[in-house]
Amino acid sequence: MKKINTSPLSGMQELTPAMQAQFDKLKSGIAQAFWMHGFQHIETPLIERTEVLLAKAGGDTEKQIYKVIKTDETADKANQALRFDHTVPLARYTVEHMNDLAFPFKVTQIARNFRGERAQRGRFREFYQCDVDVVGRENLPVAYDAEVIATLTDAIRVLPVPEFVVRVSNRKLLGGMLEELNLEHLAEKIFSVVDHAEKVPKEKTEMSLEELGLGAENVVKITTFIEMRGERLEIIDKLRSFGFENENFQAGIAELDEVLGLVEVLSPGTKVIADMLIVRGLDYYTGTVFETVVPQYREFGSICSGGRYENLAGYYTEQSLPGVGGSIGLTRLFAVLVEAELVQASKQKPIDACVIPLSEHEIAEANRVADNLRKTGWSVDVVLGDNKLSAKLKYASRVARKAAVIGDDELKSGKYKLRDFESGVDAIQQI
Amino acid sequence: MKKINTSPLSGMQELTPAMQAQFDKLKSGIAQAFWMHGFQHIETPLIERTEVLLAKAGGDTEKQIYKVIKTDETADKANQALRFDHTVPLARYTVEHMNDLAFPFKVTQIARNFRGERAQRGRFREFYQCDVDVVGRENLPVAYDAEVIATLTDAIRVLPVPEFVVRVSNRKLLGGMLEELNLEHLAEKIFSVVDHAEKVPKEKTEMSLEELGLGAENVVKITTFIEMRGERLEIIDKLRSFGFENENFQAGIAELDEVLGLVEVLSPGTKVIADMLIVRGLDYYTGTVFETVVPQYREFGSICSGGRYENLAGYYTEQSLPGVGGSIGLTRLFAVLVEAELVQASKQKPIDACVIPLSEHEIAEANRVADNLRKTGWSVDVVLGDNKLSAKLKYASRVARKAAVIGDDELKSGKYKLRDFESGVDAIQQI
Repeated sequence: MKKINTSPLSGMQELTPAMQAQFDKLKSGIAQAFWMHGFQHIETPLIERTEVLLAKAGGDTEKQIYKVIKTDETADKANQALRFDHTVPLARYTVEHMNDLAFPFKVTQIARNFRGERAQRGRFREFYQCDVDVVGRENLPVAYDAEVIATLTDAIRVLPVPEFVVRVSNRKLLGGMLEELNLEHLAEKIFSVVDHAEKVPKEKTEMSLEELGLGAENVVKITTFIEMRGERLEIIDKLRSFGFENENFQAGIAELDEVLGLVEVLSPGTKVIADMLIVRGLDYYTGTVFETVVPQYREFGSICSGGRYENLAGYYTEQSLPGVGGSIGLTRLFAVLVEAELVQASKQKPIDACVIPLSEHEIAEANRVADNLRKTGWSVDVVLGDNKLSAKLKYASRVARKAAVIGDDELKSGKYKLRDFESGVDAIQQI
Repeated sequence: MKKINTSPLSGMQELTPAMQAQFDKLKSGIAQAFWMHGFQHIETPLIERTEVLLAKAGGDTEKQIYKVIKTDETADKANQALRFDHTVPLARYTVEHMNDLAFPFKVTQIARNFRGERAQRGRFREFYQCDVDVVGRENLPVAYDAEVIATLTDAIRVLPVPEFVVRVSNRKLLGGMLEELNLEHLAEKIFSVVDHAEKVPKEKTEMSLEELGLGAENVVKITTFIEMRGERLEIIDKLRSFGFENENFQAGIAELDEVLGLVEVLSPGTKVIADMLIVRGLDYYTGTVFETVVPQYREFGSICSGGRYENLAGYYTEQSLPGVGGSIGLTRLFAVLVEAELVQASKQKPIDACVIPLSEHEIAEANRVADNLRKTGWSVDVVLGDNKLSAKLKYASRVARKAAVIGDDELKSGKYKLRDFESGVDAIQQI
């Protein structure tokens, strides 16, 4: 009988050991892919000054943060909170440690973040994010936008994710178009309409734009624009055919062309398209933006997204630190992979072998056998205590792939049997 | 010029990438040692219900916890907090997932915990703890106390820690002695005096005991007892010579003898002694207790400690779950290892190689070279952008051990030079 509720808090992942092993495997696969691309790992504290966390954030973020108070403090004095992403701490870190870093600073963070939002299906309050970022000092070549995408796609390839498509755009395109059409004063509202366009019928988007008073001709131009998606050369041609001479728009075309072309080079085999529907409107991106979808599982949403930000740390330093980054939301992704049965608690047992000393007299020898197996890279449990052998074998069959019993006979012969539980075959081994 | 303070909060570890790499190496070495001994990895949320965290904890713990509140909540409504150790969440986890676990449940947790105590030298508010625990259902052989110690010592061996000594005792000894002397009513106070005895002069300890009104003879018995330390056989003999027939005392002797003997067997070469000064008075241990010290660096304090608890989850279930566990406080240990210069930011560069395409025409080929090097297990950065070659080489020499330039000549010859920055030697490689 339970006395206190022992379920984890809602919105927080907690896995059985078998599922945890699956999760760990995906996490370390991602970390390995990032590392292979030359990204350096850092860790920042989970708690930051509220002042740091909210320097750039908008009202929604403020509502979602978890404040942290020591028990003897009052809430109004609380000036610390749990971080909600890796980007804000990265900005603080880069300024703080600037003299110890080589630029461009290729950096990865893989850890938990927190959002105190209402718990709902598929939304986590505590979640792993796996980020890569490249931060430049004063300038950062656009080529790194492609490198970030290529690195993330290499990481996704180690996951049990079916064929995916990277959708890329550049915020300078819609931004420049609105300048050209003298609609800059409505830019924020238009970006917001476009950001939601995928979730509503086309008519609703048109209506929302009309309601802003753009005029029918402009609404057509914008809806034509956001419907453009396809291969690089085709979309670049179509963008040029708008005939806009606006500098931002032209820069957007050139950057999009370079980034898409370079992703094809750096990540051969990755399906990457230009898609003007992508704006990532609520974020602080200023150039390249991208999302990644799995056509076979539309319900996954974007499994990996990011973009270019013109200045990472404007609230902390006068120095300009342009950056580009992206993130895999691993906790959410793991949940959808489990639901789609693309991840299953493997039938493989958590450990490789159990070695069972028949009595306390054989513990030393059993431990030597275990140590020798460990040297081959195995995880080995020496089963202790005076339970019956049958109970020990039953335990072994639940946790291990193989088992050996070490008794008097084995000591005398210098040989033991290593039983494989699945095949039932015994392999004879030297002690 | 900084605008907002960018230092991390006090009491929170934040490392440069080079030091982070060292920290990560130690952490994964420990995880590997635990895994090899057949411990299964789990993760629990960092946030728990206050009710769960404080079910067993005393007043000091309550003062040290970080409460967590959503921004729109008031502090008096706060019923969630950051966990302060791994043991309380493990108790909740074991009850919650009981049907998915095989017992004895050998489990490891390696993650951050939080204590909102006053920041001071060597004390962290956010810190990694690396725990192993074995949890039994209804019973758990004392042999697992030795297995926990053997596993932890194997883990310490992968760290740059000089020769260490494991100091072991059993709380049933002092407990049984106090029963025998009819001093049970003072047990809590006496345990507390003994727990502090190492930090004060002997006279102070005697005075504190006298002040409790034990009588001179009892004070002598207790001080004689707590001065006993040495090899197993010697101390077991001395303990027997007290002549106490008390059941607890006798059980303490038998368990201590078994645990020490078995550690010698399971962890040959480890220096392990019986030491009656160890009581770990503020914890919830009921049998075996141990600490680990480095004689060459007394100032390190105990780098790893733990013990046996009779019932892990009495607040959550009627079922008896005896356990034994121990923990390496990695964040604190890392700090003292750095201070003692036993860990140094290695001169080794964070990544293995930089591949530099001479112009954008060679990016594809440079990326192919990089991918081939990655397949050999290397971390490789393709240096992008149109900076001068000299600037790219300077960057490469800061972050990588080796570098290659891929230009027109290399494409034509099908060969490139892989320069080792330290030796200055060029190795000729096939593209």
